Amino acid sequence: MRSIAVVGATGAVGRIVLEELAKRSFPYEELKLLASARSAGQKVIYGGIERTVELLSPQAFEGVDLVIASTPDEVAAEFVPWAVDRGAVVVDESAYFRMKPDVPLVIPEVNSHAISRHRGIIASPNCSTTQMVVALKPIYDAVGIRRVVVSTYQAVSGAGASGPQELEQSLAACQNNQTFQPSVFAHPIAFNLIPQIGSEKRDGFTSEEMKMVAETHKILEDDSIAIHATCVRVPVMVGHSEMIYVETRDPVGFNDLRELFRHAPGVTLVDNLQDKEYPMPLGCQGKDDVFVGRVRVDLFNPRAFSFWCVSDNLRKGAATNAVQIAERLVAQVARV
Amino acid sequence: MRSIAVVGATGAVGRIVLEELAKRSFPYEELKLLASARSAGQKVIYGGIERTVELLSPQAFEGVDLVIASTPDEVAAEFVPWAVDRGAVVVDESAYFRMKPDVPLVIPEVNSHAISRHRGIIASPNCSTTQMVVALKPIYDAVGIRRVVVSTYQAVSGAGASGPQELEQSLAACQNNQTFQPSVFAHPIAFNLIPQIGSEKRDGFTSEEMKMVAETHKILEDDSIAIHATCVRVPVMVGHSEMIYVETRDPVGFNDLRELFRHAPGVTLVDNLQDKEYPMPLGCQGKDDVFVGRVRVDLFNPRAFSFWCVSDNLRKGAATNAVQIAERLVAQVARV
Repeated sequence: MRSIAVVGATGAVGRIVLEELAKRSFPYEELKLLASARSAGQKVIYGGIERTVELLSPQAFEGVDLVIASTPDEVAAEFVPWAVDRGAVVVDESAYFRMKPDVPLVIPEVNSHAISRHRGIIASPNCSTTQMVVALKPIYDAVGIRRVVVSTYQAVSGAGASGPQELEQSLAACQNNQTFQPSVFAHPIAFNLIPQIGSEKRDGFTSEEMKMVAETHKILEDDSIAIHATCVRVPVMVGHSEMIYVETRDPVGFNDLRELFRHAPGVTLVDNLQDKEYPMPLGCQGKDDVFVGRVRVDLFNPRAFSFWCVSDNLRKGAATNAVQIAERLVAQVARV
Repeated sequence: MRSIAVVGATGAVGRIVLEELAKRSFPYEELKLLASARSAGQKVIYGGIERTVELLSPQAFEGVDLVIASTPDEVAAEFVPWAVDRGAVVVDESAYFRMKPDVPLVIPEVNSHAISRHRGIIASPNCSTTQMVVALKPIYDAVGIRRVVVSTYQAVSGAGASGPQELEQSLAACQNNQTFQPSVFAHPIAFNLIPQIGSEKRDGFTSEEMKMVAETHKILEDDSIAIHATCVRVPVMVGHSEMIYVETRDPVGFNDLRELFRHAPGVTLVDNLQDKEYPMPLGCQGKDDVFVGRVRVDLFNPRAFSFWCVSDNLRKGAATNAVQIAERLVAQVARV
């Protein structure tokens, strides 16, 4: 790739995209940072060099080969065609293109084969989907999956950079016995839980819950898996956690499960209850892996088990996965 | 009842027991407040009158007819026989006697018939069990229950009065960029989740998780229900939340489920996703009911559904349930 552009470069995820590109010595000749009018003109330090963020416009994509984008859905809907029309390949983290039939939805550890089917756009899944599917993939391959019941415990940073700010403000109001009028979340989040992420989608399920169903089906190319998701916002800054209950096609054993997780790409097993060792949001922040622990076979069904899964929602849930897709894309282009 | 004693009167739950007795105009002639040496001699205001807490001793139970007790298990193991030997009936909130065959384990809305089988001790269930079983009872009666998968989001006050203190200290340390050495919980709880409550019990499940299995079986008098629990501590002061997935014997409909919850004793249905209305810990604090919302039929199985359940763990999860048992006991004695 000669020229790459990072769109949404000033956002919480965009900044980590830049950090990951530097950490991985991602190859390029030219790097453009783009953002909408509100952020254009800002300075960002990348690889020790200060760069100015340029305005997102059709002309900005002239000569660009690869775009990594993290923007709201409505922004993606507008600018992605500008880039594709000018010959760029876009790795897009928004939800807008994920379910389009000709757009591959990719987690590199799970379905990198789908990358080559792209027609200019490759989508990166929702944060809560990505960490679940990374962990489920070795199970799916080994013993099959009939059903998944998942409850999430999602960090406020999933709502963007304003989420952590609002948690701080909400906490300060509590500590000063003041009432707090939330703007990012529908209710105060300090010392509270909000069992709604996204809007109502169908039959009482939210858009976030239905993403976990539809995206998992698309990534695993298997609509037969029965998935039941409940998504809950918790007063944690960074790191989504999930309790995942799985009914398998074949029986599973405790030791086999641990071996599957131990050798799964992108997964780190942390599972020693006696020594109080298991994944927690605080310990997973800033790390690229998906962390798995509390593995337990169902006491009443030898074809079912559960586990606890934590990952940094801004990294593997967003920036890291997009940069990993871009790396595979570069490797495929290099091979041709 | 002529004479009643409240044991553990200075604890977080004990104080609410006193408040509930006053609120309900619980009938008695004499009221003793008892606590261990550490708290004896303290003054407590009850019904507008200041009383001195007396030392817990065998002699303290002379002439006492009814005891409501909220103490650690090891304290209950010692003092409960003192009271029973002297002719008192003890409503005990500890776990120590719950699974003994000759001790009824009672939630008044669910199995008040078991009260009359007591031989001096009636146990009140674990907080996480109580709210789940109150909500499950109407479902169990109407369509049967084959399987329950439950993920909890449990408040720090479940660990006693020191839990909220430690959350405050842990938050202050974070806000001042200091490291924090926890003593109540195994890990810092501010901005974090701890997927362990209690110690390892069997096959990777914790004692808290196994309580939800064994106590539910005992209360519903049905060991055939397959229960899979995951218990998680969250940075919330008061109010346990639970995501409860249920496989039923007969098919269930959305409207039928809502009607069952709407008419269930002890349950308040708060379920209007479009208007962002559902139970949350902040709204349930200080209330006696079990709150149910986010009711959804499984999209892949007409014999399964899920709901979100919140209750004040210090009230229905502890103090309120014990006082309700005592009320039924008094009513039964009065009828004889």
